[in-house]
Amino acid sequence: MFKAVINAETLRDAIEAVSSLVDEVKFSISEKGVELKAVDPANVAMVSLKIGAEAFEFFKTTPGEIGVDLVRLTDVLSMADKGENVQLELDEESRKLKIGVGSLSYTLSLIDPSAIRKEPRIPELDLPAHVTLHGSELRRAVKAAEKVSDHVVLGVSDDVFFMEAKGEIDSLRLNIPSTELLGLKPGEARSLFSLDYLEDMSKSIGKAQEVTLELGMDYPLRVGFKIGQAIEVNYLLAPRIEQE
Amino acid sequence: MFKAVINAETLRDAIEAVSSLVDEVKFSISEKGVELKAVDPANVAMVSLKIGAEAFEFFKTTPGEIGVDLVRLTDVLSMADKGENVQLELDEESRKLKIGVGSLSYTLSLIDPSAIRKEPRIPELDLPAHVTLHGSELRRAVKAAEKVSDHVVLGVSDDVFFMEAKGEIDSLRLNIPSTELLGLKPGEARSLFSLDYLEDMSKSIGKAQEVTLELGMDYPLRVGFKIGQAIEVNYLLAPRIEQE
Amino acid sequence: MFKAVINAETLRDAIEAVSSLVDEVKFSISEKGVELKAVDPANVAMVSLKIGAEAFEFFKTTPGEIGVDLVRLTDVLSMADKGENVQLELDEESRKLKIGVGSLSYTLSLIDPSAIRKEPRIPELDLPAHVTLHGSELRRAVKAAEKVSDHVVLGVSDDVFFMEAKGEIDSLRLNIPSTELLGLKPGEARSLFSLDYLEDMSKSIGKAQEVTLELGMDYPLRVGFKIGQAIEVNYLLAPRIEQE
Repeated sequence: MFKAVINAETLRDAIEAVSSLVDEVKFSISEKGVELKAVDPANVAMVSLKIGAEAFEFFKTTPGEIGVDLVRLTDVLSMADKGENVQLELDEESRKLKIGVGSLSYTLSLIDPSAIRKEPRIPELDLPAHVTLHGSELRRAVKAAEKVSDHVVLGVSDDVFFMEAKGEIDSLRLNIPSTELLGLKPGEARSLFSLDYLEDMSKSIGKAQEVTLELGMDYPLRVGFKIGQAIEVNYLLAPRIEQE
Repeated sequence: MFKAVINAETLRDAIEAVSSLVDEVKFSISEKGVELKAVDPANVAMVSLKIGAEAFEFFKTTPGEIGVDLVRLTDVLSMADKGENVQLELDEESRKLKIGVGSLSYTLSLIDPSAIRKEPRIPELDLPAHVTLHGSELRRAVKAAEKVSDHVVLGVSDDVFFMEAKGEIDSLRLNIPSTELLGLKPGEARSLFSLDYLEDMSKSIGKAQEVTLELGMDYPLRVGFKIGQAIEVNYLLAPRIEQE
Repeated sequence: MFKAVINAETLRDAIEAVSSLVDEVKFSISEKGVELKAVDPANVAMVSLKIGAEAFEFFKTTPGEIGVDLVRLTDVLSMADKGENVQLELDEESRKLKIGVGSLSYTLSLIDPSAIRKEPRIPELDLPAHVTLHGSELRRAVKAAEKVSDHVVLGVSDDVFFMEAKGEIDSLRLNIPSTELLGLKPGEARSLFSLDYLEDMSKSIGKAQEVTLELGMDYPLRVGFKIGQAIEVNYLLAPRIEQE
């Protein structure tokens, strides 16, 4: 049994944070809320999403798993008007999810969870440098870097968070001293990342008031932010090898 | 002689209701106003438009007929700024319509009315069920249904107006009880329609405060709504055969 | 040495007035400000731009020349948020222009000025008729004319500024009497121009409160307008031969 009501835009924002990387996912549903972990087809980026039960207007469930095509789910959620809620209800027998939007009732066929790629084990990493900034600042830097190159160095040097993008002709550097950051735990950090993935992530990141980046030397980047109070998104992005 | 002044946006809205189905039309002009009846090239949908003389700021005419390319007329009307009027004046001799928009004067070549497809005879149908609702609600339902299928069932069952769209994977149902409609005359009604045509019509329907649908059992759908106080649009859409 | 601070949007508007005609330009920098003259690849239109030192928040320079790819410069300026300033600083040694936008620092490689097409000598013309009008009015007329033809006649007849576009089917005429113009110096004037070029220019013209056109009989069109108080843009557009 799964029955829930949630603001359509909130759910859409949560789904978008995942659908930028993967199309089909397995949601784990329990009393605590809805969770998922997924890895992109190229094994470069992982995402975990936790929608706490408090994020819902109404939430009642027995523990279970459902497989969902995020493209179709997003399509349905886009039927809702601004501020409108959606009703979700699992039909156990037919394995379909009924999604109510106003007077509309959409019947979404679920995917057999066993047909969906296995959940990744997300490694525990103790990354030395932590940077907290506005999501919109990171999004702007990523969009700017794309005009110059297809990969970018992120790092921390002394009390400064930096980004470097070098193109064949022009180059771009971002320097934000700790005084202009929302938070900084300094540490040795410098790693190269693909801008394709950062751009995919930055659509969701850009909406977040506060984003925390965790960085090391040629180590993955961890990005964490919240949607509202009760939804947590975490990305883990593998580094690329920097060539001289 | 034909000379008239009308708000450009109002005229554009009226024309758009027709141009979504046909490109070239024959307007009948009389003291009462401007009228047309037309059928789409595939003979699936008919439209009638009545622009009452009261819809014009100024209106003076002798009875007559003019043939107009609606694509070009819409182009000209889009030159007007918000709230601006257009001046229309027929040059009898050259068979051209002078359209004044601000300081611009556009000379639109008319089409010989005899070269335009004959006006359809719109059948008098006494359809059992009548449903009145906000145009925006119908538009939203049509747009939602398009994500699922390319045809849709519209009907009335007891005191409920319903829409059903069945796709290969997902399905969608709309239920609006009479308490949430602007009006309902119950009656046995269930017919299948092409979403292509409904979508073409729904651009105009979506702007109307109030739309009335008339339905029967495997019978055409009649849709009626007003633009402002003095412009009436009516569609008649042939049903498709429902296959099991 | 060149160091300057300017509102990003102001600079972008000034650059756009030029980049609609040419891609690579040579800026002449002096204490008075920044200037350029350029001609389009087909030698049909010339543009001159003067950004007075007063247009800058900060301006300090020694005289010099720099070659700039306007497409890339526009790209960088688009990184700025509304109302934000950009910092410009020339690195003499590396021949690069550092462009600071917030925490971002873009390094723009300059072009060797000797590799850029020689500046045109802009002819001194004493054109008989002068017309001053709102930029948005001219832009609207140009956009309307494009729906009818690919060239247009501009002229002055008695106290009226007119535009004529003749298509194969329809035609368009603009008449603005002096009473509805911001200014008119009457004179014999009628010349034919390419709408392609006028359209390119009209994006910038459309933003100007006040635009002055200078016209003659089969003579070039001169267009002058200001961006803010201290930026001047002038176009000179060669006429085409009118065929009967």
